Amino acid sequence: MKAVLLVMDGLGDRPCRSLAGLTPLQSARKPLLDMMAREGETGIVDVVAPGLPNGSDTGHLAILGYDPHECYPGRGPFEALGAGIDLTPGDIAFRCNFATVDHEGVLLDRRAGRITSQEAALLGEILGEITLEEYPEIRIVFKPTVEHRGVLVLRGSGLSPRIADTDPHRTGVKMLEPKPLDDTEEARRTSAIITSFLKRASQVLASHPINVRRRGSGMPPANSIVLRGCGQFRPLQPIYERYGVRCAVVAGGALYRGVCRAVGFQIINVEGATGTYDTNLDAKVDAVIRSLSNYDLILMHVKATDTASHDRNPARKKEMIEKISRAFRPVYEMGGSGDLYVAVTGDHTTPSEIGEHRGDPVPILIWGPDVRRDSNDRFDELSCSKGGLNRIRGLDIIPLVSNYLGRMEMYGE
Amino acid sequence: MKAVLLVMDGLGDRPCRSLAGLTPLQSARKPLLDMMAREGETGIVDVVAPGLPNGSDTGHLAILGYDPHECYPGRGPFEALGAGIDLTPGDIAFRCNFATVDHEGVLLDRRAGRITSQEAALLGEILGEITLEEYPEIRIVFKPTVEHRGVLVLRGSGLSPRIADTDPHRTGVKMLEPKPLDDTEEARRTSAIITSFLKRASQVLASHPINVRRRGSGMPPANSIVLRGCGQFRPLQPIYERYGVRCAVVAGGALYRGVCRAVGFQIINVEGATGTYDTNLDAKVDAVIRSLSNYDLILMHVKATDTASHDRNPARKKEMIEKISRAFRPVYEMGGSGDLYVAVTGDHTTPSEIGEHRGDPVPILIWGPDVRRDSNDRFDELSCSKGGLNRIRGLDIIPLVSNYLGRMEMYGE
Repeated sequence: MKAVLLVMDGLGDRPCRSLAGLTPLQSARKPLLDMMAREGETGIVDVVAPGLPNGSDTGHLAILGYDPHECYPGRGPFEALGAGIDLTPGDIAFRCNFATVDHEGVLLDRRAGRITSQEAALLGEILGEITLEEYPEIRIVFKPTVEHRGVLVLRGSGLSPRIADTDPHRTGVKMLEPKPLDDTEEARRTSAIITSFLKRASQVLASHPINVRRRGSGMPPANSIVLRGCGQFRPLQPIYERYGVRCAVVAGGALYRGVCRAVGFQIINVEGATGTYDTNLDAKVDAVIRSLSNYDLILMHVKATDTASHDRNPARKKEMIEKISRAFRPVYEMGGSGDLYVAVTGDHTTPSEIGEHRGDPVPILIWGPDVRRDSNDRFDELSCSKGGLNRIRGLDIIPLVSNYLGRMEMYGE
Repeated sequence: MKAVLLVMDGLGDRPCRSLAGLTPLQSARKPLLDMMAREGETGIVDVVAPGLPNGSDTGHLAILGYDPHECYPGRGPFEALGAGIDLTPGDIAFRCNFATVDHEGVLLDRRAGRITSQEAALLGEILGEITLEEYPEIRIVFKPTVEHRGVLVLRGSGLSPRIADTDPHRTGVKMLEPKPLDDTEEARRTSAIITSFLKRASQVLASHPINVRRRGSGMPPANSIVLRGCGQFRPLQPIYERYGVRCAVVAGGALYRGVCRAVGFQIINVEGATGTYDTNLDAKVDAVIRSLSNYDLILMHVKATDTASHDRNPARKKEMIEKISRAFRPVYEMGGSGDLYVAVTGDHTTPSEIGEHRGDPVPILIWGPDVRRDSNDRFDELSCSKGGLNRIRGLDIIPLVSNYLGRMEMYGE
């Protein structure tokens, strides 16, 4: 018995005026997903809690069966893991951007003119070589990811993650200080280390040939970095120990790979899985099917439904859902032999007329050889609310799937 | 106002091929239970948690309103209480079997040729008389229950329940050591006490006239006992204090009587209530009706639905449900006077094509003079999922029933 969990990011929505009062899911032509709803059981999911808008990070933790109120370290460590960095317990990690500041530290461009990944790679290399004279025991790891984005990791004893973002999230103002967020010696020291690192970083970036060239051609130099999402890594119980399932993930976005790595998933790399609208869905589905013999459960994540929501484009979200439904058919067909369970859901609601996360529940379907088929025959927010699963929590999803796989350990006798 | 709670063990199921894709409950002709569903409110229950397969012990604790994660001591103490032993706080208890071992301790028969209850009673007597020279302060209580089964209790200060099963659960291998499961002095000492007891037990069993006779007639001697399910007794808050209801139980199986005793139920003994297929359902129903004037709530437990599930016999499970529905009619008729509530549910799902416990929810109906009648008119897993109670937890059942009885204390003003 095997399982596939398809998560469409930001899947949940609200009635859209431009879709005649339907949600993108209600409006989409998605015969495969509807057929699986008809043949399976359905319900709605409060991913973290009713009415609580959750991020993709906390949402995925919950969906993987880890209570984010206990297990969420902040986004930084997940981004770092997703970028391929091997973290050590106690490491603190930030998401960061290359940015452009003037001589007084006023932020001119939060993305340094969207420098290329190639330029960022070269700049990142020298940042990773920085050592701090005053803190020789602190190891710095810097890894650029896509374009202006990257991850900063500090390694050493006695670090605190209680550090404020330096990113003011708008231009024309000074970059913020990496202030300690509590009154501990650790937080004050960590703040001082980061201040020291940022100063050194500005020095080495200012004189770097790439920035000399950029200034020469009138482009904003990547002469600073802004930090956000500080978190401290501590290992989580592997999902195999907790729920008895060996898992892997197919996802373009670093965050999703990172959350999955944090709980012991293997990462399946897929050419063309980009986390964008033009991600290669067929290649992802193909990777799921090829890899299934090695795992109990594979999570396939698609980001673009959420991107369309943030872009306030209900029609594009609908279109993306239709593409996913078409591309997913080989998984359904693989299930014809009766040894596959499939769960389909989202990690949060992003109403595409609002463009921000909201706390409404998301629909779910579970399909497989011996599920209790309910009478609902459509996969959307409203129809699934009448399904046999009723209303569950994100935390319930993996136990329900592992239960079907016969992998849940009995509690009591 | 009175209440009856009918628990059919292992009631929940999944679609069965041999029942044309229906569950035993869906397939059963059970006009009484369907009528009560039609006249009452219905829902589904995650007995302990969604997707978590629970045992009958943890399931019943939850159904009685005690969170097993806080209150579950292991199965041994419940079996001991169910066997009629009065436990003292700190006692540790095991379930045990008389067994046959060879001279090297290799297990030849886990049931000692299913010795009779009469033989076991005589053998049990001498085991209960054992005293350990090295541990004179330890009191040993041994009580045979049915056939080869029994309960062992150790009483004394500083005992630990963190002791491994000695039952390897298969023959042809050596019995296991009663290993300490943690590194405490208490666990090591308890392990040594049990080792010492088992040695003495082998000595007195080997030479016992019953075993001499059994060997003489070529039958496997009951020359050893195997232990499992160690737990330590500590008193739980009585159900009357917690939920305001005076309770009694009608059940054949020792476990169910034991869980109920642990939370302050009275035990109603019924001739012919055996916990097997041929249990006398009419006698149990009769006992419920006769005793109701003395209590607020009576739990009636029927084991055979689960036995059929473990026997992988959907048809027999269906037949048992039909028998229960017929036998239960006098309770329904008693409710005609308008002062009775009835709740009907199961303690876990045991899909009868799998034969093992699973974590799928179980159906519930609550019937009574002023419940909110929903539109569901059938008592089965799927129909009840559309009921007015929606999806609840096992822990919710007693509060809901006590609420109908007007016995729940108000919280706040």
